[in-house]
Amino acid sequence: MMLKVGIIGATGYAGEELIKILLHHPQVKIALLQAVVKEDILIQDFFKGLQGKINLLCTNLNLEQVILETDLIFLALPHKASMEIAHLLLKHKKKVIDLSADFRLKDTSIYEEWYQTKHTCPQLVRETVYGLPELYRNFIKKATLIANPGCYHTSIILGLAPLIKHQKIDLNNIIIDSKSGVTGAGRTPTHTTHFPNCSENFFAYKMFNHRHTPEIEQELSFLAFKEVNITFIPHLLPINRGILSSIYVDLKDSLNQDQLLAIYHDFYQDEPFVRLLKDTSPQIKDVIYTNFCDLSVFVNNKKALIVSCLDNLIKGASGQAVQNMNIMFDFEEKLALW
Amino acid sequence: MMLKVGIIGATGYAGEELIKILLHHPQVKIALLQAVVKEDILIQDFFKGLQGKINLLCTNLNLEQVILETDLIFLALPHKASMEIAHLLLKHKKKVIDLSADFRLKDTSIYEEWYQTKHTCPQLVRETVYGLPELYRNFIKKATLIANPGCYHTSIILGLAPLIKHQKIDLNNIIIDSKSGVTGAGRTPTHTTHFPNCSENFFAYKMFNHRHTPEIEQELSFLAFKEVNITFIPHLLPINRGILSSIYVDLKDSLNQDQLLAIYHDFYQDEPFVRLLKDTSPQIKDVIYTNFCDLSVFVNNKKALIVSCLDNLIKGASGQAVQNMNIMFDFEEKLALW
Amino acid sequence: MMLKVGIIGATGYAGEELIKILLHHPQVKIALLQAVVKEDILIQDFFKGLQGKINLLCTNLNLEQVILETDLIFLALPHKASMEIAHLLLKHKKKVIDLSADFRLKDTSIYEEWYQTKHTCPQLVRETVYGLPELYRNFIKKATLIANPGCYHTSIILGLAPLIKHQKIDLNNIIIDSKSGVTGAGRTPTHTTHFPNCSENFFAYKMFNHRHTPEIEQELSFLAFKEVNITFIPHLLPINRGILSSIYVDLKDSLNQDQLLAIYHDFYQDEPFVRLLKDTSPQIKDVIYTNFCDLSVFVNNKKALIVSCLDNLIKGASGQAVQNMNIMFDFEEKLALW
Amino acid sequence: MMLKVGIIGATGYAGEELIKILLHHPQVKIALLQAVVKEDILIQDFFKGLQGKINLLCTNLNLEQVILETDLIFLALPHKASMEIAHLLLKHKKKVIDLSADFRLKDTSIYEEWYQTKHTCPQLVRETVYGLPELYRNFIKKATLIANPGCYHTSIILGLAPLIKHQKIDLNNIIIDSKSGVTGAGRTPTHTTHFPNCSENFFAYKMFNHRHTPEIEQELSFLAFKEVNITFIPHLLPINRGILSSIYVDLKDSLNQDQLLAIYHDFYQDEPFVRLLKDTSPQIKDVIYTNFCDLSVFVNNKKALIVSCLDNLIKGASGQAVQNMNIMFDFEEKLALW
Repeated sequence: MMLKVGIIGATGYAGEELIKILLHHPQVKIALLQAVVKEDILIQDFFKGLQGKINLLCTNLNLEQVILETDLIFLALPHKASMEIAHLLLKHKKKVIDLSADFRLKDTSIYEEWYQTKHTCPQLVRETVYGLPELYRNFIKKATLIANPGCYHTSIILGLAPLIKHQKIDLNNIIIDSKSGVTGAGRTPTHTTHFPNCSENFFAYKMFNHRHTPEIEQELSFLAFKEVNITFIPHLLPINRGILSSIYVDLKDSLNQDQLLAIYHDFYQDEPFVRLLKDTSPQIKDVIYTNFCDLSVFVNNKKALIVSCLDNLIKGASGQAVQNMNIMFDFEEKLALW
Repeated sequence: MMLKVGIIGATGYAGEELIKILLHHPQVKIALLQAVVKEDILIQDFFKGLQGKINLLCTNLNLEQVILETDLIFLALPHKASMEIAHLLLKHKKKVIDLSADFRLKDTSIYEEWYQTKHTCPQLVRETVYGLPELYRNFIKKATLIANPGCYHTSIILGLAPLIKHQKIDLNNIIIDSKSGVTGAGRTPTHTTHFPNCSENFFAYKMFNHRHTPEIEQELSFLAFKEVNITFIPHLLPINRGILSSIYVDLKDSLNQDQLLAIYHDFYQDEPFVRLLKDTSPQIKDVIYTNFCDLSVFVNNKKALIVSCLDNLIKGASGQAVQNMNIMFDFEEKLALW
Repeated sequence: MMLKVGIIGATGYAGEELIKILLHHPQVKIALLQAVVKEDILIQDFFKGLQGKINLLCTNLNLEQVILETDLIFLALPHKASMEIAHLLLKHKKKVIDLSADFRLKDTSIYEEWYQTKHTCPQLVRETVYGLPELYRNFIKKATLIANPGCYHTSIILGLAPLIKHQKIDLNNIIIDSKSGVTGAGRTPTHTTHFPNCSENFFAYKMFNHRHTPEIEQELSFLAFKEVNITFIPHLLPINRGILSSIYVDLKDSLNQDQLLAIYHDFYQDEPFVRLLKDTSPQIKDVIYTNFCDLSVFVNNKKALIVSCLDNLIKGASGQAVQNMNIMFDFEEKLALW
Repeated sequence: MMLKVGIIGATGYAGEELIKILLHHPQVKIALLQAVVKEDILIQDFFKGLQGKINLLCTNLNLEQVILETDLIFLALPHKASMEIAHLLLKHKKKVIDLSADFRLKDTSIYEEWYQTKHTCPQLVRETVYGLPELYRNFIKKATLIANPGCYHTSIILGLAPLIKHQKIDLNNIIIDSKSGVTGAGRTPTHTTHFPNCSENFFAYKMFNHRHTPEIEQELSFLAFKEVNITFIPHLLPINRGILSSIYVDLKDSLNQDQLLAIYHDFYQDEPFVRLLKDTSPQIKDVIYTNFCDLSVFVNNKKALIVSCLDNLIKGASGQAVQNMNIMFDFEEKLALW
């Protein structure tokens, strides 16, 4: 019996990647594709790269149809658009994996401040599971609503979790210099993402002011059992895909590289999608088109550098969403992701 | 006495380049910058790269002010927007260099067909000089209205002119495979020019259907004294600037590379901005940020390949416009362009 | 029973892609990796992207071991290096897929002229099958030695085959303007492939003088049953992967786009890896990381343009090699390639 | 009277930029070009972009000729190669601007440790002036030997100087995350700088281990009048030119952005080549091909971020060298650099 899956928001980058991944999933049938479109369109005409691999209409939003024809729904919608839809789908006993930020922040007042909108289903937030398998696998198994983490978040939280969990670092001096490819900004053309503005260029943006900051701090604080504040500065790389975060921390005690790596090894040894590298930086070219997060650590006196690297559209979005689905439905966790 | 120059359309790529070039011109004062803007903006705040080099307000279109304060006006507006403005400025005895296509086609019915708009000043077209100095320098000297050629056109016409002029090639089998950087598509973001759609990508566009075709054919026909039809296919390169045209022709008589080069050498020997290369392809990196058009020729039996290469924003637009200005006002032709 | 496969030349780009593809093949076991290396190296240390996916030593060339441990060998060696090795392996009843040019030219005197080396096994050339499944599937099934076509070749031959086979075009005026990504030049750093020489650059190379020309002409001549001479000019694109060929031909009779497409549709309708697009250019982004060759055709009077596009490392090398293996060993043709 | 200038190391990137800049200098004559070359070569054949702009032979190293024909020599040689040459030229009363690291470190034992070579003229180091005009203009005026700072150094020292000079920051927690374009690695092709290894890629390198660290610490310590230790991690950007350094510091006292900017404004108000931006990150595209260093500052509580951006080949190498020359010879400081 194949799981009937719907993708709402199929015409964005995350939707495209979900289709590409799920097409290779032996236990899933893509039952339905929807998006905010003026008229129905064959998805393989919209994404020409899908020619010959799928033949399916992407229709305008129609939740009744979603309820009738699918069991699990991926919401790949812009922030703010998922709240009501998730609510309705859950009422009809569907399972939902939401790739937006709408259910990620446990404190909805913080959500409302950063996203400048009222949160209409705060009660749902409580039962939402944060879809980071490396931290919450057991909760994901039983979840009905997954808040799938974003790309910066995954790279940073996976980079810091072992050291914070084991209380190895000063929580008051965490500096995160992140660099993202341009697909991280979505499919809508803007002056910022115009080719001549990116190519042969590089710059920081939203200095001390990126709305992903509170979500990252929330997750790190859960790990620390106390409040964590970070310095997080994103930059835009002239590449299509991939994120690399350079994370600077102060060690409480002197630890050499081997000792640090041992902590990471213990923490991630059973994880299929976290790889540790020694003596070399992770490289974006080695993780793009994969669900891997590559990590390496370096030490100088009591300063440590963690370099964390992943594909923003896979481990940072759609691949992780499928990993969550595999866990929820008791499929082999690597299915369609290997 | 400095020439007082106005730039209308100062917020586009051609406008930006005009400013950068004219800032270095010892006999020109940028008197005025205008564009279609909602509110006045300091041009150095709009183009941050101009910080410290200029301090000038770019205001909304105001032709009265243009008439009062300038002697020469560069129109760097989208196609169709220049007609009326040029007309008015000429009536007030101004000189105009128009970077759009509005006055390039001598047969306005062809213009009207390809640009889907009525031409409102056909009488002006007759007195317009096509601003390609290598062909029309003597006319440019006395011109009041210059139709500044586009980027594809310049690379192609300069590549073919010597062979057509000297009747060395079959006029029925000219194949032009052109490749342009993304600034050629202008500053307005579109799906086509969205970074992730260009980077690591390449494709043809407007196959047999690019509206620059009739303009190129017009100029080649003038050179040939008979009708020339070309096959012209543009492609989009994942680079910011530069055009390279690979032009395939059939020689009427056997000529070796040296003989061909001699024809080009004779034709261009006094031209400051045309360079001939031997035994090697021109490269875009060698012409960007310059007003040069680099050419090389290769032969195999009676097939010849001409490779022509220039910076679409300089020799293909603003640099050539300044070169035309230098000629019109009897300045040293290389001023500000060297 | 798994097929035991060896890859000789495992440290090049084609070797890397072969490993990545074969890792997903359910009926193949990568039994052995060899290359010209000074000391044995774990392949996942050499290509970090393979970490966690394979654990296998790449050793120096050792044909005795190859003979003992494998049934099928992929030779991903530089031109000239395969001849003797293939010869020896075949004597030991192995099957060989050679990705070099060593066995592609039926007339070894042409090989010797272009590759400046003596061909040491001309007798083997006769029994070699040119590994282009769309043309030679039935021969590939029974082959013991496959000469796997190169990247330019595949894009061009697939683009022209239907029209030449059906005698629709003038064979004396075929102009091929090809553009390749930089991996086409191999893994060895050179001045040409140095990042600052490619990025924001573009140029033609080996004008009328590329050694792939005779191989393409050979295959087109077989299709035409008469000698075909082409004009073939390659260019270097500032991208990692992908080839796009713009092919200009003269139609013998007037055909519109639909009629042309119908010819292509008939020719390729059962082909899993050839896709036809209508009214739009193929794009490199839609074929990279796939085994597809995308084609489209355009007409203007009796000039036709065929645009052909593929991933130089997949359909242009390793993917096609695996496709050939699937055919030789009666596996499902799309296995590991879909 | 024109200053007769020689460039030794003319075939590298810094040499190429020196030529391009000096060609526009009204008071300088490029008298001589030398490099380690097997045979003499016309420099415009070596760098095709110089065709039509210069006609000069680049010959093999020949110091006698240098002594006879030049007054000022730019040494654009690899590290370690300049020591003896500078020594000899100074003995002959020449003035020297050395772009290598050979004379930058005042403590030659540190030089010897990081560059793994004996320093042969430690006595010269003492009289060398560090060629950063913003800090040492008065010394540069009288210098005979300039140690021209490197690219990372300039971006970092200019970014930190005002805050260190005014004792506004904690000297024990300075974190510098720098990103450089590929020309920073020089003209020699390597696996690291091979196009397919850079494009669509990004990574850190020499983690806690870059040999520019001690030089930066030296200069910051001079400013602080006490020892400063930094965390400096360079990364490789997939672009040709440009460096952006993101510098994280702890403010001793609370300062808002305006107060911080005021400090920078005071410090740099008379500097022609330092630009301050407000509320926006500097962008590499705005500084390439210029001698500007663009700076901006941001604050959050007592954490400050300084973003510093320049062209590694101009303000980070050859432009700064010419700026130093202008100061030494009492030319207008902006000559040829504006």
